[in-house]
Amino acid sequence: MKLAIMGAGAVGRSVAQIAPEYGHTVTAIADSTGSVQDPDGIDVNQALTMKRNDGTVGSEAPEALLEADYDVLVEATPTTLGDAEPGYSNAVAALERDRNVVLANKGPVAERYNDLMDVASESEGAVRFEATVGGAIPAIATAEGVGPEHISAARGVLNGTANFVLTRMQTEGLAYEHVLAEAQDLGVAEPDPSFDVEGTDAALKGIILANVLDDGGHELADAKIEGIKDFPANALEVAAEDGMTIRLIAEVTADEVRVSPRLVPENDTLAVTGTMNILQFDTEHAGQLNISGRGAGGPETASAVLADVDRLSCKSGSGRSS
Amino acid sequence: MKLAIMGAGAVGRSVAQIAPEYGHTVTAIADSTGSVQDPDGIDVNQALTMKRNDGTVGSEAPEALLEADYDVLVEATPTTLGDAEPGYSNAVAALERDRNVVLANKGPVAERYNDLMDVASESEGAVRFEATVGGAIPAIATAEGVGPEHISAARGVLNGTANFVLTRMQTEGLAYEHVLAEAQDLGVAEPDPSFDVEGTDAALKGIILANVLDDGGHELADAKIEGIKDFPANALEVAAEDGMTIRLIAEVTADEVRVSPRLVPENDTLAVTGTMNILQFDTEHAGQLNISGRGAGGPETASAVLADVDRLSCKSGSGRSS
Repeated sequence: MKLAIMGAGAVGRSVAQIAPEYGHTVTAIADSTGSVQDPDGIDVNQALTMKRNDGTVGSEAPEALLEADYDVLVEATPTTLGDAEPGYSNAVAALERDRNVVLANKGPVAERYNDLMDVASESEGAVRFEATVGGAIPAIATAEGVGPEHISAARGVLNGTANFVLTRMQTEGLAYEHVLAEAQDLGVAEPDPSFDVEGTDAALKGIILANVLDDGGHELADAKIEGIKDFPANALEVAAEDGMTIRLIAEVTADEVRVSPRLVPENDTLAVTGTMNILQFDTEHAGQLNISGRGAGGPETASAVLADVDRLSCKSGSGRSS
Repeated sequence: MKLAIMGAGAVGRSVAQIAPEYGHTVTAIADSTGSVQDPDGIDVNQALTMKRNDGTVGSEAPEALLEADYDVLVEATPTTLGDAEPGYSNAVAALERDRNVVLANKGPVAERYNDLMDVASESEGAVRFEATVGGAIPAIATAEGVGPEHISAARGVLNGTANFVLTRMQTEGLAYEHVLAEAQDLGVAEPDPSFDVEGTDAALKGIILANVLDDGGHELADAKIEGIKDFPANALEVAAEDGMTIRLIAEVTADEVRVSPRLVPENDTLAVTGTMNILQFDTEHAGQLNISGRGAGGPETASAVLADVDRLSCKSGSGRSS
């Protein structure tokens, strides 16, 4: 298929680089200041070299990408809160042209899910968003396979930065500020880590899962959020004395979406370490299903985007089995 | 869709009972001595009551089911070795009528994969077999999502009986014979446990995974198999002294399919306990993906069958993304 990639950060660049291995052609790519397009396929290496040297992938306006020749818009601009722009409008523009949309950007499905699905229901194109929850983990596909109506709850560790900080604090007995600085040095935490350590990122993923399970109706403001900022090291010590540890758990139940530090047994399935993510579904007929893997990273997230592109041949609409 | 269910053991019965929740109609069910059919939907409770009271689900011959009115044949007869009969011929009969086949029976895809896919390639019907590997775990769907060509290896704990025996031996310090007898009392092990404890069942699942990753070419005779029969308890003690445990691991690499007891760290992702199953994929772009859950049981396996029925709308042929 022909892919137009809006956003040339780590995920957008990785999608552009590995799409040919999956049999697809990149016909356009844009960053925040420019774009390039060619209906026969752009030269990806040239565009990314130009970005490194000149700061942009191409000389056309970014918005020109939306009018390019493509089957699938890959929306990989940064997640924004509130109105989820410009990701939301980009997705709508593609759907109104009867094109498919694959989101890596969490905003449109965490903040404006119902609006987006209303637009999708009028389009020949479909919307998929596997990459928005748990990076490489097939979170949405697994929920679809089980059937959202047969899942009573979901919970997991869905932010690798927070999990890295908590596990390093426990294994090394170090203070929050020390480990956070270390994580920033390693590139595991952003210079401004608030999105991750305050629980917002995990909550967005919880809201997206809630929207999948309930066919919409949830947005970020509905989530109860407590992060791990300035988390006290002695709480981890006290937990360890009883064979427990603490994880930032996002949980989706029939009643609420909640993100908070929670006690879990040290050898529990949910107690993944480092930057790993894990997602657990409580199912009606199949007990608990657990999926773990890398929750972030360019190639990892790109692989989820490309799995979604492959699934577009399955179903129209939101891709759900309702 | 209309389902005809060949086999009325734990899996076949569960499929019949929960299929209506998934929007499907059971138009026929057969056991080894009889069958019943109705194009408008059979009375499942009546058929299963008749089986309990009279020993069979209906008065027609079992083979009559193959000529019933159905969209999908659910093949849930017991797995047999060698020629995989009668499962193989049942699947072929459905495909030759241009019907879909969903297998819970491992034989046709472990022993005659190439033959079966040749028949499927000439049919309007498709073949799917999620339920044959890891019960409730979405093993095949996850491999399809990643793309078999992007997976370099798979390994896991794929036999719950053997895992129950090994974990009980370690946690309780008991001998093999003792734990096996306990497992038989609990119904976790069969009266004749050789299929599970000798590694055959795990090897069948490894061969099926190898066929998915390589698009066929493997059968049981190619697997290297070492089971846990009469496994010495002191080997587990020695392992525990170094923080290790032992699991019966099925591993699929580019070179071989191998089932054998292997040392794994006690807190390793693969060290699941009791009857749990886990499957780990090494992927090209997404690191390791792990999926764990209940590897056996009627409703659990039935949920995988019904997920496959839902996926039939996606693709024809073998359902693979090659």
